[in-house]
Amino acid sequence: MHYRPTDSQPLQPLMPFSGNPLDRASNFRDDDAWVAQQLAAPQSRFLWVSKLEILTHQAATPTLAWVDAEANRELDLESTPVLLGVRDGVAHFAVDVSAIEGPLERLGLQGAAFAEPRGLATTLPAGEAGIVAQARSLLDWHARHRFCGACGGETVPAMAGSSRVCQACGTHFFPRIDPSVIMVVWRDDRCLLGRRRGRPPGSFSCLAGYIEQGETIEEAVAREVQEEATVPVDAVSYEASQPWPFPSTLMIGCFAHAASEDAMADQLEIEEVRWFSRAEVRGALAGDPQTGLTIPAPVAIAHHLIRRWSELES
Amino acid sequence: MHYRPTDSQPLQPLMPFSGNPLDRASNFRDDDAWVAQQLAAPQSRFLWVSKLEILTHQAATPTLAWVDAEANRELDLESTPVLLGVRDGVAHFAVDVSAIEGPLERLGLQGAAFAEPRGLATTLPAGEAGIVAQARSLLDWHARHRFCGACGGETVPAMAGSSRVCQACGTHFFPRIDPSVIMVVWRDDRCLLGRRRGRPPGSFSCLAGYIEQGETIEEAVAREVQEEATVPVDAVSYEASQPWPFPSTLMIGCFAHAASEDAMADQLEIEEVRWFSRAEVRGALAGDPQTGLTIPAPVAIAHHLIRRWSELES
Repeated sequence: MHYRPTDSQPLQPLMPFSGNPLDRASNFRDDDAWVAQQLAAPQSRFLWVSKLEILTHQAATPTLAWVDAEANRELDLESTPVLLGVRDGVAHFAVDVSAIEGPLERLGLQGAAFAEPRGLATTLPAGEAGIVAQARSLLDWHARHRFCGACGGETVPAMAGSSRVCQACGTHFFPRIDPSVIMVVWRDDRCLLGRRRGRPPGSFSCLAGYIEQGETIEEAVAREVQEEATVPVDAVSYEASQPWPFPSTLMIGCFAHAASEDAMADQLEIEEVRWFSRAEVRGALAGDPQTGLTIPAPVAIAHHLIRRWSELES
Repeated sequence: MHYRPTDSQPLQPLMPFSGNPLDRASNFRDDDAWVAQQLAAPQSRFLWVSKLEILTHQAATPTLAWVDAEANRELDLESTPVLLGVRDGVAHFAVDVSAIEGPLERLGLQGAAFAEPRGLATTLPAGEAGIVAQARSLLDWHARHRFCGACGGETVPAMAGSSRVCQACGTHFFPRIDPSVIMVVWRDDRCLLGRRRGRPPGSFSCLAGYIEQGETIEEAVAREVQEEATVPVDAVSYEASQPWPFPSTLMIGCFAHAASEDAMADQLEIEEVRWFSRAEVRGALAGDPQTGLTIPAPVAIAHHLIRRWSELES
């Protein structure tokens, strides 16, 4: 078998919110003594998150603002720091400081502020947005899973925050990730895009939806395209994936070949579907206002899927 | 762009537990009047599930044993039927009858029995195992999410069982699916397989693991191979996916190219890793005992990934 670079996905941070450089230390995080040692270590780094916004240094090019164990202790937090991973021997944690009034003022931290993750995805240095994605998804999951689904008892973090355990019945819970499919539907030299309810005229993107129980990726793609646009799909190819931490989706990006041209929006999630030529899509990506077409910004995998499709030769 | 059959995945049921023929009726299931009508309709079909085992007709070739609305009413169940989907205008539901003592005896149902889903995946007619996967994952999720993670209040099924809602705080919950990666690691003419802790000597399979927060599919593949076998991966290609309803995993199958040959089992989940030549793998798949290698049965995507890799030309 030959190495197939065209089929294979390189591992560099291709997509916003990927490229997290931390070693997640999966083989260590259930070692309570090791975790306690890292929590107290002077070199350990803590990322504060308040109401799902991330502490960053304010600058032309923002960077994540880490605080040390001492600053973290001074806040006298009740919430448990959650291990993100290790880099160069230094443990990195995320900490939910939402319950603290004015944490920055209390510690006299200057030049730093809490920032909305979406805006950080394409402005942080490479890889740091991957840390943001991990931290936001994890802390949001902790906040929303304080009780046991099986018995209603209180749960507490375990394994350095990579799970929660019910104090009443002992059930373990792991953070959830919701796999979804997002696809460029294509046929001949055109692709089918959809305008979601509430989006302005001309604003189109990929069709997309969550995978359901008992479905393959390919089946989910075909079902969603059928539901949203009444178009039958006869072949699917995987292109790329992206973590999307709102709250914790794995976007699985595909190309879907349409078996027919007839398309009709479902009028529920999708208000309008339309076929666009490759030339129109290229024009829109180049910022040509004459196309009347707006596609999503580069923060979204939809942008990259549409761009990749537009760059294929007819 | 040309149609690329070699890259694209056909939509037929390639993998056990896929190929569900029902239309999931996503655009109807939040219509309570429509759902009530289907629940009462004489032609509607109900699949009984007891302790996660599925009611099937006992025969050389088993088939799913559906009961009608009347039989279902006679059980006087407290649990809400969960909509699976619609076929030829007929609604299909799954019903958890675990709380009923001897449901078959009570209704005098003969020739039918509750069967373990794993054994059904490769014996049911095409597509029926996809229904089993959907039903098992959905009912298991309902049983384990009776309370709200946010406030501890009681939840009740909503939208024909495609969600649950908290009666105290109104939060909506949707069934979870856990995306995981499973991969044939390869280099030159050999592939790297692992023997899980507790498996007998010679019993090898793909490396695998759950995707974590803030990861792409490709990053999860590289991380798992690094963690379980200390092998760096420099390229990943997607091959196929499979729903695995124990309880609700989406297996994302890939080929991963190893950047080096040095491999060492983590001694945690994986007790032994070993490189196998394509000839050895082909021998094992042909049932040759001389290879000393046993790979998973066809119920698992691992079998199909290893087989596909073995059939590639060197």
